[in-house]
Amino acid sequence: MPRPLSATIHLDSMQHNLQRARMEAPHANIWAVVKANAYGHGLERGMRGFAQADGLALVETEGALWLRQNGWNKPILLLEGIFDAQDVPMLAEHNINSAVHNIEQVKMLEYTRHVGPIDVHLKMNTGMNRLGFTPGEYEAAYRRLRAIPDVRHITHMTHFANADELEHPRLTIAEQVRRFKYGAGELPGERSLSNSGGVLHQGELGDALSNDWVRPGIMLYGGTPGGRSALDYNLLPTMTLRSEVIGIQQIAAGDTVGYGSRFEATGPMTIGVVACGYADGYPRHAPHGTPVIVDGVATRLVGRVSMDMMTVDLSPIANARIGSKVTLWGDGLPVDEVAQAAGTIGYELMCALAPRVRVLEGRMGTDG
Amino acid sequence: MPRPLSATIHLDSMQHNLQRARMEAPHANIWAVVKANAYGHGLERGMRGFAQADGLALVETEGALWLRQNGWNKPILLLEGIFDAQDVPMLAEHNINSAVHNIEQVKMLEYTRHVGPIDVHLKMNTGMNRLGFTPGEYEAAYRRLRAIPDVRHITHMTHFANADELEHPRLTIAEQVRRFKYGAGELPGERSLSNSGGVLHQGELGDALSNDWVRPGIMLYGGTPGGRSALDYNLLPTMTLRSEVIGIQQIAAGDTVGYGSRFEATGPMTIGVVACGYADGYPRHAPHGTPVIVDGVATRLVGRVSMDMMTVDLSPIANARIGSKVTLWGDGLPVDEVAQAAGTIGYELMCALAPRVRVLEGRMGTDG
Repeated sequence: MPRPLSATIHLDSMQHNLQRARMEAPHANIWAVVKANAYGHGLERGMRGFAQADGLALVETEGALWLRQNGWNKPILLLEGIFDAQDVPMLAEHNINSAVHNIEQVKMLEYTRHVGPIDVHLKMNTGMNRLGFTPGEYEAAYRRLRAIPDVRHITHMTHFANADELEHPRLTIAEQVRRFKYGAGELPGERSLSNSGGVLHQGELGDALSNDWVRPGIMLYGGTPGGRSALDYNLLPTMTLRSEVIGIQQIAAGDTVGYGSRFEATGPMTIGVVACGYADGYPRHAPHGTPVIVDGVATRLVGRVSMDMMTVDLSPIANARIGSKVTLWGDGLPVDEVAQAAGTIGYELMCALAPRVRVLEGRMGTDG
Repeated sequence: MPRPLSATIHLDSMQHNLQRARMEAPHANIWAVVKANAYGHGLERGMRGFAQADGLALVETEGALWLRQNGWNKPILLLEGIFDAQDVPMLAEHNINSAVHNIEQVKMLEYTRHVGPIDVHLKMNTGMNRLGFTPGEYEAAYRRLRAIPDVRHITHMTHFANADELEHPRLTIAEQVRRFKYGAGELPGERSLSNSGGVLHQGELGDALSNDWVRPGIMLYGGTPGGRSALDYNLLPTMTLRSEVIGIQQIAAGDTVGYGSRFEATGPMTIGVVACGYADGYPRHAPHGTPVIVDGVATRLVGRVSMDMMTVDLSPIANARIGSKVTLWGDGLPVDEVAQAAGTIGYELMCALAPRVRVLEGRMGTDG
């Protein structure tokens, strides 16, 4: 028997969340983002859960090839593009759409000719200051790409820095859209602007976000990019992390718990040791008080998370015992709540799920 | 070509660090701890790098079996023991040493008889308040185990909460040793107390730490449990995480970088985008200023780490270009320095290395 720790993936929630994206952006095609092993859910499950998407987007070349070889016949997009000229023929051969975000990638396409038609997403840096051409450089990059015979469709793409906050004091979506329109002007081709935040604000922004393609990521996995809760947006958890109590300690006032003896009891209490630690993907920086559920009852983390275990307050749980069921996040405990307590975002938690955690499939409300 | 990101494992450093543990605890046998996929290094590499250890210790039952089936003939220890009575015969069949830390595990051994000799490590909770019997319960647990015909050797084990700090204000090693001696008294059997911290303080604590077995973990991977630096202890990095610059942005005063627009430039500067993000295992909570090395020159992280990328200050690097080599941690940049900047410990960073990162082998000073 392995350690009593497992992640249950809810494929039906993935389908539901994709449908939610479809409702928010009804006129756009959807790239479902499946990078980082589908945010920890497994690329193969991403392919099944998002079977109704119009395309799958990721950053891993080997993942893109895997999708093609395993039956995904719709579009595929490499969000960081390619890293070497030797990969240009692969784009044509497997019909993989590639981001072009720097001049080196333009040169790779210029040098490697007669391989067949290639579709690209030309990326503009509208203030994120990560990947892409500045609005001022953009049209020249477009002209160079347009002059390459193998290049077929050119889609215009940018990425929002603060899509979780409509009125960000330093850089708003509206300002990025303004720069995008300035840079791309009337150039022919489809447009792709919105990540999850953009999709969820589509209603408020209306015509400004004239996406032909949207690129939701975290919302498809039941997390939000920030601001309101997943429930507010009617997004469902797609991953439930569960374990069990494997040890119980009765402690008294003055006793401390765990590494660094950070937690000190003020009175008698029951401590449960749960088989899940930071080497499983649970955040080590989750502080005292981070929510957990034991035998259906809400309680809290105490002391420091260790590598393979964590300690929780069993005082509110009647009949807690070795073998009591623990939910770390997911069904009944949105991943964003745990992430927020730990000062991070749900993306990080799900992506960090370690290979040693058993992965199951099942509907919410079941044990998987 | 995959993304230009790789982790190079230095097997020679693993051998060196094991030798360092041997020097600090010359009279003890060494359990080299290889749980969590050998702290992200790969279990198979753990087996090779620590071939000279007296035993390998881990928490994953399936890992223990893998070691047996792949040629590890020396002792193996399951640090959390087993989770189900059905695993008792496996312990005897494969000669796997099991921790016994709660009464349920004692009962599993009592119920399952005539399977062959089993060696156990009986665990005492001396103040960590995680796994184990209290000093008051300990002897009774020992007597029950001793009465089981299949149980052969019983080793007495405890675990230190604050081994990185000799004079911890709440709970010292010395106090835990005192409780251990009280609980285990003169019971026959070997003793196992020290983790990395205990091993590194062996000299100062002297006879108090009369270990027959020690259980170093993090020190074998070139990290320290806290306090002094790896260099102070002559420990070498065992994992170097490297990537490349994949994008460059020239920004001006007032421009912001990344999600949340957290970083704002005060003057013109050059930003490099590095292909490594939190979905690769780099900590998302690493703040502005966290050290990185680009083309051999020390520089710093700017802005928020995103899922697949991070942004660094290229201003100090002459001739920085797309393809410039980046060291995130390891050779030339101790993992503890990066961890400290991010408010965590080297253990977490190495364990979090994501499956999508290519793993190579090579000596320090080479590119792997």
